Amino acid sequence: MKTGIIGASGYTGQELVSLLIRHPEINLDTVTSRIHSGKVLSAIIPKLGKCGHALSFSNPTIKELAISDTELFFLALPHGTACEYAVPLVEAGKKVIDLSADFRLNDPATYQEYDGQEHPSPEWLSRAQYGLPELHDLSWSISPLIASPGCYPTSIIVPLAPLLSDALIETNDIVVNSISGISGAGKSASERLLFCERNESAGVYGLPKHRHLSEIEEQLSQAAGESLVLSFHPHLAPMNRGICSTISVRVKGNLNPNLIEDCWNDSYGQRPFVQILKGGELPETAKITGTNRIDLAVQADPRTNRYIISSAEDNLLKGAGGQAVQSMNLCNGYEEGCGLL
Amino acid sequence: MKTGIIGASGYTGQELVSLLIRHPEINLDTVTSRIHSGKVLSAIIPKLGKCGHALSFSNPTIKELAISDTELFFLALPHGTACEYAVPLVEAGKKVIDLSADFRLNDPATYQEYDGQEHPSPEWLSRAQYGLPELHDLSWSISPLIASPGCYPTSIIVPLAPLLSDALIETNDIVVNSISGISGAGKSASERLLFCERNESAGVYGLPKHRHLSEIEEQLSQAAGESLVLSFHPHLAPMNRGICSTISVRVKGNLNPNLIEDCWNDSYGQRPFVQILKGGELPETAKITGTNRIDLAVQADPRTNRYIISSAEDNLLKGAGGQAVQSMNLCNGYEEGCGLL
Amino acid sequence: MKTGIIGASGYTGQELVSLLIRHPEINLDTVTSRIHSGKVLSAIIPKLGKCGHALSFSNPTIKELAISDTELFFLALPHGTACEYAVPLVEAGKKVIDLSADFRLNDPATYQEYDGQEHPSPEWLSRAQYGLPELHDLSWSISPLIASPGCYPTSIIVPLAPLLSDALIETNDIVVNSISGISGAGKSASERLLFCERNESAGVYGLPKHRHLSEIEEQLSQAAGESLVLSFHPHLAPMNRGICSTISVRVKGNLNPNLIEDCWNDSYGQRPFVQILKGGELPETAKITGTNRIDLAVQADPRTNRYIISSAEDNLLKGAGGQAVQSMNLCNGYEEGCGLL
Amino acid sequence: MKTGIIGASGYTGQELVSLLIRHPEINLDTVTSRIHSGKVLSAIIPKLGKCGHALSFSNPTIKELAISDTELFFLALPHGTACEYAVPLVEAGKKVIDLSADFRLNDPATYQEYDGQEHPSPEWLSRAQYGLPELHDLSWSISPLIASPGCYPTSIIVPLAPLLSDALIETNDIVVNSISGISGAGKSASERLLFCERNESAGVYGLPKHRHLSEIEEQLSQAAGESLVLSFHPHLAPMNRGICSTISVRVKGNLNPNLIEDCWNDSYGQRPFVQILKGGELPETAKITGTNRIDLAVQADPRTNRYIISSAEDNLLKGAGGQAVQSMNLCNGYEEGCGLL
Repeated sequence: MKTGIIGASGYTGQELVSLLIRHPEINLDTVTSRIHSGKVLSAIIPKLGKCGHALSFSNPTIKELAISDTELFFLALPHGTACEYAVPLVEAGKKVIDLSADFRLNDPATYQEYDGQEHPSPEWLSRAQYGLPELHDLSWSISPLIASPGCYPTSIIVPLAPLLSDALIETNDIVVNSISGISGAGKSASERLLFCERNESAGVYGLPKHRHLSEIEEQLSQAAGESLVLSFHPHLAPMNRGICSTISVRVKGNLNPNLIEDCWNDSYGQRPFVQILKGGELPETAKITGTNRIDLAVQADPRTNRYIISSAEDNLLKGAGGQAVQSMNLCNGYEEGCGLL
Repeated sequence: MKTGIIGASGYTGQELVSLLIRHPEINLDTVTSRIHSGKVLSAIIPKLGKCGHALSFSNPTIKELAISDTELFFLALPHGTACEYAVPLVEAGKKVIDLSADFRLNDPATYQEYDGQEHPSPEWLSRAQYGLPELHDLSWSISPLIASPGCYPTSIIVPLAPLLSDALIETNDIVVNSISGISGAGKSASERLLFCERNESAGVYGLPKHRHLSEIEEQLSQAAGESLVLSFHPHLAPMNRGICSTISVRVKGNLNPNLIEDCWNDSYGQRPFVQILKGGELPETAKITGTNRIDLAVQADPRTNRYIISSAEDNLLKGAGGQAVQSMNLCNGYEEGCGLL
Repeated sequence: MKTGIIGASGYTGQELVSLLIRHPEINLDTVTSRIHSGKVLSAIIPKLGKCGHALSFSNPTIKELAISDTELFFLALPHGTACEYAVPLVEAGKKVIDLSADFRLNDPATYQEYDGQEHPSPEWLSRAQYGLPELHDLSWSISPLIASPGCYPTSIIVPLAPLLSDALIETNDIVVNSISGISGAGKSASERLLFCERNESAGVYGLPKHRHLSEIEEQLSQAAGESLVLSFHPHLAPMNRGICSTISVRVKGNLNPNLIEDCWNDSYGQRPFVQILKGGELPETAKITGTNRIDLAVQADPRTNRYIISSAEDNLLKGAGGQAVQSMNLCNGYEEGCGLL
Repeated sequence: MKTGIIGASGYTGQELVSLLIRHPEINLDTVTSRIHSGKVLSAIIPKLGKCGHALSFSNPTIKELAISDTELFFLALPHGTACEYAVPLVEAGKKVIDLSADFRLNDPATYQEYDGQEHPSPEWLSRAQYGLPELHDLSWSISPLIASPGCYPTSIIVPLAPLLSDALIETNDIVVNSISGISGAGKSASERLLFCERNESAGVYGLPKHRHLSEIEEQLSQAAGESLVLSFHPHLAPMNRGICSTISVRVKGNLNPNLIEDCWNDSYGQRPFVQILKGGELPETAKITGTNRIDLAVQADPRTNRYIISSAEDNLLKGAGGQAVQSMNLCNGYEEGCGLL
């Protein structure tokens, strides 16, 4: 299948290029970048080496993309810009996997609350499928547009959704703390992201309503069957990649960590990219960076009657590019882990 | 005042040496280390340079220390060992500031619960004073033994204690997430603390009952006037120094962050080492490492009816050596910030 | 081909496991570790995830290995220990790729000079082949024992050997400065390698005769056709992986960087894992970590009549495990880049 | 003495503020910044805490500065801009310590060669004094304008100048490799300096003629009494602060490291900020960051007949702000280490 990546100059786009250029089932024929147009891929993504000499960045118009013979596009564009590409492309019959936040919500009101303005194509909010393959069955027959989840949401929704569906935890007392590597903040040249500003520093930001919160709450409300709100405290720490989330929830019913592990096993036991840690082992980002895996663990605290749930994933793989490829694999009928193991 | 540091080979001990060797009011005449005995201070603490050439590590017996003319000892010894020095020294009439956890609790039962064995000198648990100068009046007339607080506890007790005293927050729904630099784990050569194991990694540990939890709960229960338990999730992140704590608490009464800031101002407004951030600014470790300061901030989240309280401090200064010197300053009648600004 | 890794608990061994467990042509059936014997691979190498659940570390005797049906062994053992395994295994008819320094030298006198004692099996020094595939034709018919080069030597020999063979540079004025990530120092728990000791620190070590110097000089003397000595200054910098070497050499004849690039192109232009940078681009470790590539560049300085030659490689891949797999690929008749791209 | 800092928004300026606000002999009354004008110092330099609440950034014109009653100005301005301030200020009778490269050279031709354009006030090139206090006697009677040396030059000139003066090393075969922390590259928001671009990366840059080379060669030629050129290879490594330089030089006469150490002792033995390491100890940046010290060591290599000389300093202290304060101390008649120990 001829495949393209639109907007490949950021960290997510580059990760996608690295994955798709080696993917055995597809043919990466288009990689676009406004600023790097004309350069060979390796000039901007040095790790590609000789693999990246055969293809160059291009800068086609949306129209040109729509009439090209490329069948599937991954959009690694800024929020807002992605929508401008996604809608004409799907309307021209293309398949689109969008890695931005533009189509992750169902509810136009929530979009407006967090974004400050109306969604430009609200009809596509409900028509897009949310590309979290462990949670939702994905298929091109459901929609030609996949909204690939954010990095924080993946690390929180994967552990919590089945527990809420099974009513193992209370819905009104969820506190999430996440620590992200700096690549999650993107590649734009801002003083705040300079090496000397981030190195040797850790702290919380984006309080109290980080934009990813809307997506987390909508998905978890859906899983719980009722509307819920939660506390979300994202942090930056001085590392390139990785997100770990530590989640405190109040038990519903008996406090028994085996119930949590059983629930996860029922949901994820057969999936290649979810690993449930046992015996007191806890997720750490270094254990999963470079993989498409998410690690989960649970501890019970009988003193507070709460569970401590923790997860770790690579924000650029399971939290972005890897997950998008996983969704493609499933929709295209390939092995779920094709090109990702 | 002739002053000594017992056990100066670890990170806390070295920080104490750096502070006390430059302190204008005291005379550092004894620095001990079993393993470095005989070497000049600079050989082990290179940053001292020529300042550290005049004094060498020694290895006296407890008896020799007890009959020496050194009046005040800082103990930077492992938990358990500190007690062996502290009791004979105070009983010999010395003043002692202990940076270990040996005397931080009042309740022998709690000590035994967390330590697994009985305290060897339980009578001194209640006789020691807890050296958090912003919270407790300190004086040598109260006790010759100061138990200097731990790094995590300081970052949590300073922001929460006055709010609990003033009943601004609920006592039964406190969730604390802390991120610590690696120096908090000490200087012993273990594989887990190797550069390549910690670099590019973040994760939670010590669940559900980190040993510092006992100290946090005892102090906060005292502030609240009732027994409370809380959730504490310590994390390591790849940086040398600094702790940030992000604390989620349920409001009691009206949700109004000004009430929190007013309460802090009443308690800490005149203190040199507490800074209350305003206007949405949030604590970050890089803003305070190298200082004896703790930064505090509060955000309100009306959706969950909770406050998000955050703090940052240098774990080796306000969280250890700096705080111990601050306590000495107050007890000795020096300026609170002497040698610390 | 049934393949084993002996001594897989260090960083090099773990990298080899990751490469060989996914290698499409071989069957990794033995992975040994004295300390981890009995544990599944993923317990110690978490990045393997579910891939590493099927195989466990074992701890067979040398005799058991010699009579097993495993045909090829990679030795990731400490210097000195490797020899104890290598000789009986090759004498039992096995193929062996040794990643230690035990067989990298030809000259027993040089071995003794650097090691302080006689080589236990000096006859194998000359019988082993030096596994730098870009420089030497490799074949099991030459020898069943491959001495896989060190990380520093690879980064220095690859750029310099053809220039010395072609007499483009003087042999008596070579100054090499290398910067290595910390994984090059291994995984043993020593205070010097703790996170807080290495983080935020850079410095030279191992002066003036680092053990790798013997190997560098022997190989380069061979290339030059005359005995040469050089200056080698290894440094550590706070990063996990990667080596960059910056080499100052005096020109022989005309100073013209095109001559250098042409020489490299003649030697390496068709090789998959050498990349010659152009147009002023300079090697950086971040461009190559995670790959088996070495990047080269040359600058001329007409003021000093010297070339500045720089290289970068991943010390655990092209500098260790990746190169060993590359040698296996060639000797076994697979594609040179099989399992490495 | 009323003192001002012009251009205090960069890393060097902020370091100067931290030093001068605590300096016991001077009165810091002016701190300027075009972009931060009106904000209190602590808002931009958080480590100042309450110390930085009393003073705000201002943005006066050069004329206003010239007629103010501030007597001494430190310029922490970009190259080129510094000159615009320095000349009118000294001509108005002020004392000026310039931390830029604008007045570090004597020879206008060298300035033009490296800068690409003529110096705007060439008469001041020879009238300024070069502020390396260990090498040159400094006095306001020599000049009201001090050109404070660069960070790389200090790390190279301090070890080499006396050896060249005493003819202990050859002048025509000097190879310098330096590794700098990222703060040396300044605080401007460029993609190349982002955390994710610099973290986990090391490499050489600025070949073959880094702008600091001109200053190094001019000073060393002066010391040697003859014109010399050398090879200079600056590198970046992922750390905030610190420079280490490793210098290979060919011996003149007998190879004997004691001669080098004796020469350094004669020149620097009584100086507070030069430390000569003995017994094989080697400089490392972590040993000196946060201090105004430079550490030196020498090793001899009889195989190549060369010395390996290494140094380490904090690029923002001995390599910038600290050294500028040291020069002020000496010119103003204070203790050399006042405010720096």
